[in-house]
Amino acid sequence: MRPGFTEESFVQKLTERFKVASPLLGIGDDCAIIPKDASMAWCVTTDALVEGVHFLPLTISARHLGYKSIAANASDIAAMGGKPLYAFLSLGIPKSCDSDFLDGFLDGIEEGLKEMGIKLLGGDTVGSLSHVFINITMVGEAALDKIKKRAMGKVGDFVCVDGYLGESAAGLDILLHDFEKTHDAAYASLLEAHRHPKAHVAEGEWLAQHTSVHAMMDLSDGLFTDLPRLLQASQCGATINLEQLPLSSSFKHYCNAKDKNPFRLAVEGGEEYCLLFTVAPSQASSLNEAFRSHFGRAFYPIGTLNSELSVTHYLLNGKPELLHAVPFQHFS
Amino acid sequence: MRPGFTEESFVQKLTERFKVASPLLGIGDDCAIIPKDASMAWCVTTDALVEGVHFLPLTISARHLGYKSIAANASDIAAMGGKPLYAFLSLGIPKSCDSDFLDGFLDGIEEGLKEMGIKLLGGDTVGSLSHVFINITMVGEAALDKIKKRAMGKVGDFVCVDGYLGESAAGLDILLHDFEKTHDAAYASLLEAHRHPKAHVAEGEWLAQHTSVHAMMDLSDGLFTDLPRLLQASQCGATINLEQLPLSSSFKHYCNAKDKNPFRLAVEGGEEYCLLFTVAPSQASSLNEAFRSHFGRAFYPIGTLNSELSVTHYLLNGKPELLHAVPFQHFS
Repeated sequence: MRPGFTEESFVQKLTERFKVASPLLGIGDDCAIIPKDASMAWCVTTDALVEGVHFLPLTISARHLGYKSIAANASDIAAMGGKPLYAFLSLGIPKSCDSDFLDGFLDGIEEGLKEMGIKLLGGDTVGSLSHVFINITMVGEAALDKIKKRAMGKVGDFVCVDGYLGESAAGLDILLHDFEKTHDAAYASLLEAHRHPKAHVAEGEWLAQHTSVHAMMDLSDGLFTDLPRLLQASQCGATINLEQLPLSSSFKHYCNAKDKNPFRLAVEGGEEYCLLFTVAPSQASSLNEAFRSHFGRAFYPIGTLNSELSVTHYLLNGKPELLHAVPFQHFS
Repeated sequence: MRPGFTEESFVQKLTERFKVASPLLGIGDDCAIIPKDASMAWCVTTDALVEGVHFLPLTISARHLGYKSIAANASDIAAMGGKPLYAFLSLGIPKSCDSDFLDGFLDGIEEGLKEMGIKLLGGDTVGSLSHVFINITMVGEAALDKIKKRAMGKVGDFVCVDGYLGESAAGLDILLHDFEKTHDAAYASLLEAHRHPKAHVAEGEWLAQHTSVHAMMDLSDGLFTDLPRLLQASQCGATINLEQLPLSSSFKHYCNAKDKNPFRLAVEGGEEYCLLFTVAPSQASSLNEAFRSHFGRAFYPIGTLNSELSVTHYLLNGKPELLHAVPFQHFS
């Protein structure tokens, strides 16, 4: 991204210039919402991935790249509580790109589409001078009164995530800095999280059915970047208890071996497609029971919303912890 | 585009791999069609534009580029007879890009959106290593029973266009090879056609209301490339009478001054957003009267559909004419 120019500032510029009237939900959430009839709506999201910025040929195969492109968009729809239905693919291909890459990429696209029951309805394929770029627009469907927005958080809500944090970031770290460990079975789940992440579509749809779930979004840019977006939209603040962060044993093992602060990596790491959501505290426990009986695993409360506008306090065992975290950045 | 790799071959590959069931219209028309209810449908299109491939900073200002990005997508929706409603913008921005470019680009986007009553509902902004790329996905609406597809042409239909041909190609030629003429008032309309083209949205909607109009598409890749797509879809052939091509006096003047074959340039030239459509011959004349009284100008019959599968005969005053035409290519 250009110096002095961030996604946040651009989104703000777009939001100001291109305000839209209710009941359409425009720029600023995981998806735009277009009412279909009195009860249903389309959720639409679009995501661009650029070689050298969002992915490196070194760190991801063409097939995984195709799959991940679909998963990233499906995750945005899951984050609203929607069901992904249709995809549109634009692909920019430089002359250096061979047909193995294209076939592998389309294999991955097909795997993602089939797994999630999504149909590819169209797209555009164009030349590109030097790097591959991918743009996917995905359309999903949700009941209008079930849609979960970033702005729906309430003071007192428990802040929850429905999967391990930091997995993808650790996987990427191995791929970039510790390549000999890519064949180490102990780290297979970390590599899988980075290269072949699952979108939490079933979880998003399930959570959306429950009125005790308030705000929801995905964690594609990491907790450190994404939580403030939820706080800003919901006009509140948060306290995060680091000891409650769900960290896998592989992740902790890797952080220990590399002398990395696991809390910092878990908070910073992006490209994680688990869901961040807030739950009415009185119902969090029964909701988690129901979640566990449905999915065979629990979700994780990691903190609480409070009234300190847009401020996040990170605590470790009740004491403020300076994480020195930085916003998640891709490669450029 | 890669050697041995064309948009056509990629679209064919996608079509084979990702077949979708009726009544959805998938890959291969100007838009995908998603039924909304028993009578209405969404039309969705997506278009990518890459610096150095589809545009050069030399030939188009940031503002015009923004406007043209919107027009190109609106034209795809017009080509189905739809009304464009919502846009999603992805923008890849290299570090070299300054805020003047961005502001100008957004001015052009805004101009296009306002002119056509389209709302920008979302998008993505990402870094890019070396070149600007733009992807727009646009959603429009059409009555299901009014949608015009490429496959609806019938043997005997008149082949028609609703505007001058070759204007954009001549404008680009001036910008690339005759820059001193860019201030020549005689050529202003050619430059305007290339840099600031209008999508024929009102015309597309109007034509869609008439059952005597059968197949329809836009001419964004030029008659020489686009007509075979219509013929292939409609399983027929065509005869085009070159002397009937609508050529403006500015265009003819420029071709004459540059010793260019006007028919060839008109047939080859892409990035032209007028509509190509076929009309039942018995009703063509009354339809054109109604068109003229509505729009203040006529459309132009330029040939006839016949039963010779996918073959186009170009005739000049009844005699076969070898145009030596080549498919429209962007800059790379």
